[in-house]
Amino acid sequence: MTPRLALVPGEPAGVGPELCVRLVQAPRDHDLVAYCDPDTLLAAAEALGLPLRIRAPEAVARTAGELAVQPVPQAVPVRFGEPDPRNAGAVVGALAAAADACLHGRLDGMVTGPTHKAVINAGGIDYVGTTELLAAHAGREVVMMLATVGAPELRVALATTHLPLRAVADAIDAGLLTRTLRILHAALREQFGIAAPRIAVLGLNPHAGEDGRLGREELDVIAPAMAALRAEGLRLEGPLPADTAFLPHRLAHCDAVLAMYHDQGLPVLKFSGFERAVNITLGLPYPRVAVDHGTALDLAGSGRADVSSLEAADRLCLRLATRGAQER
Amino acid sequence: MTPRLALVPGEPAGVGPELCVRLVQAPRDHDLVAYCDPDTLLAAAEALGLPLRIRAPEAVARTAGELAVQPVPQAVPVRFGEPDPRNAGAVVGALAAAADACLHGRLDGMVTGPTHKAVINAGGIDYVGTTELLAAHAGREVVMMLATVGAPELRVALATTHLPLRAVADAIDAGLLTRTLRILHAALREQFGIAAPRIAVLGLNPHAGEDGRLGREELDVIAPAMAALRAEGLRLEGPLPADTAFLPHRLAHCDAVLAMYHDQGLPVLKFSGFERAVNITLGLPYPRVAVDHGTALDLAGSGRADVSSLEAADRLCLRLATRGAQER
Repeated sequence: MTPRLALVPGEPAGVGPELCVRLVQAPRDHDLVAYCDPDTLLAAAEALGLPLRIRAPEAVARTAGELAVQPVPQAVPVRFGEPDPRNAGAVVGALAAAADACLHGRLDGMVTGPTHKAVINAGGIDYVGTTELLAAHAGREVVMMLATVGAPELRVALATTHLPLRAVADAIDAGLLTRTLRILHAALREQFGIAAPRIAVLGLNPHAGEDGRLGREELDVIAPAMAALRAEGLRLEGPLPADTAFLPHRLAHCDAVLAMYHDQGLPVLKFSGFERAVNITLGLPYPRVAVDHGTALDLAGSGRADVSSLEAADRLCLRLATRGAQER
Repeated sequence: MTPRLALVPGEPAGVGPELCVRLVQAPRDHDLVAYCDPDTLLAAAEALGLPLRIRAPEAVARTAGELAVQPVPQAVPVRFGEPDPRNAGAVVGALAAAADACLHGRLDGMVTGPTHKAVINAGGIDYVGTTELLAAHAGREVVMMLATVGAPELRVALATTHLPLRAVADAIDAGLLTRTLRILHAALREQFGIAAPRIAVLGLNPHAGEDGRLGREELDVIAPAMAALRAEGLRLEGPLPADTAFLPHRLAHCDAVLAMYHDQGLPVLKFSGFERAVNITLGLPYPRVAVDHGTALDLAGSGRADVSSLEAADRLCLRLATRGAQER
């Protein structure tokens, strides 16, 4: 079966709609179904001077310039660069509808563009991020992993995500690490098809604590949690000093890196290939891959936004969904 | 005046001595004076099968295979790979003697190899690191900056260095940031010859705190300290989210990055060019550049250690010393 993926542009006033239009300017051999207001896609196509033919949501639409759309009407028409909180319901509704379709097996995965948290909140909707929304919707605990698509492929999962730095050390406990590593291990096996994945686990402190001289969390929390998981068969390396763990000859020996916090893992990942970087939600019953950039309101409607990350997200989601389909 | 630099191999049982021997296998147009036990250098040369002719400390010794040496006798002969705490006094003494020569203007800068903190401490000497030793010796506050030498040249200074992660947030205060940025600014001007340096300052929290939603240190501490320094004429950008600050198109606009802590700044720097990476001490009255790797005891005496970082340190120290000599 050829996978059929949801394509959710995200914030209508951002670059998401025009990136979706550009994504479908080439013929495809898999199906994409956009979840959004079709008028916004048409407006983006017009702004960029690109052809776009909207098809019914169940259509097989794979030629250049056509796109199947499941309509999710906005409250007010889009104005690129000027987000309107009244459209927050449509943004969140599109994500929920696409998630429903994935959970019920009507679609095989989800590719998402950037949303704008503050605008959704201003619209009266309690929203932290799409990852959290999809986790709650599916009733699953999830792990955020950033990856570059295409060689060299670097994968960095996070034990904690959007926490103030001073809250990180107390958030790292054995339960969190155990759940995170199990989800990461299972996803590398089942979604990425790596039979016996090797995971490099970073320490929390500089030099991974230097035998307790620069912090004790490695000795007291991280290493014991890793030992228990190794006894279950997980192949874990570390806790490793973060500053040398990403050297190419080290990375060659592992399939993913688990960083303890946001700014320990993401600067190097984005430096290594920002335009090829995507954000993957692990632990959902379907693959979800997002772009790794924001709404770029200043570029919206200009056609100058880079479509590489959305292309990479589509390519990776297709790969993960194809594997999922084979295993079903 | 051609600069004359101290060359301090560091831990005798590590790779420092053999890297110094390899460094001087090519002819040079500046002077190096090694501070160490000459027998250790000769033993390293013999282990590697390389020629080495020891000259008097005041000699002009620039041909391939010769090296001026200021003898600092060890307590016991070296055994590569097996550090002996009884030699700790010689290791620290060599650094102090080289620092004296630099402070008194007999030498123009210092290039150092790796030391082994635990071995020095086992020798009964209170020692945190060479940076701290040289700062205390000169009675100066200093800033640690890591840099890659040769294009692209990335420079990352640290507001805090070897602190447990949970201590970082409280260590970042306006006084520290002000002193650090002034030292960094002055060094970029005076040592690196950048007339009006631009410095990118990272936030402490992910997304630089996202307007206070992910931590308030950017609003309460970092931005006010930066505003006061901008009023003095410093060109500062930020506080910036760490994960995107290192993207090439951003880096192109700044001469150095100030990271708030070790693992926020160093993974990307080492990833970007480990073999070209060096460690520079800013704020001393002379340039000091160190290798950015450890003693590699397992490689000592084998000839397999990579000399690139020591070569880069020598090259950069020469550049900084040449500029200093011009300005005197």
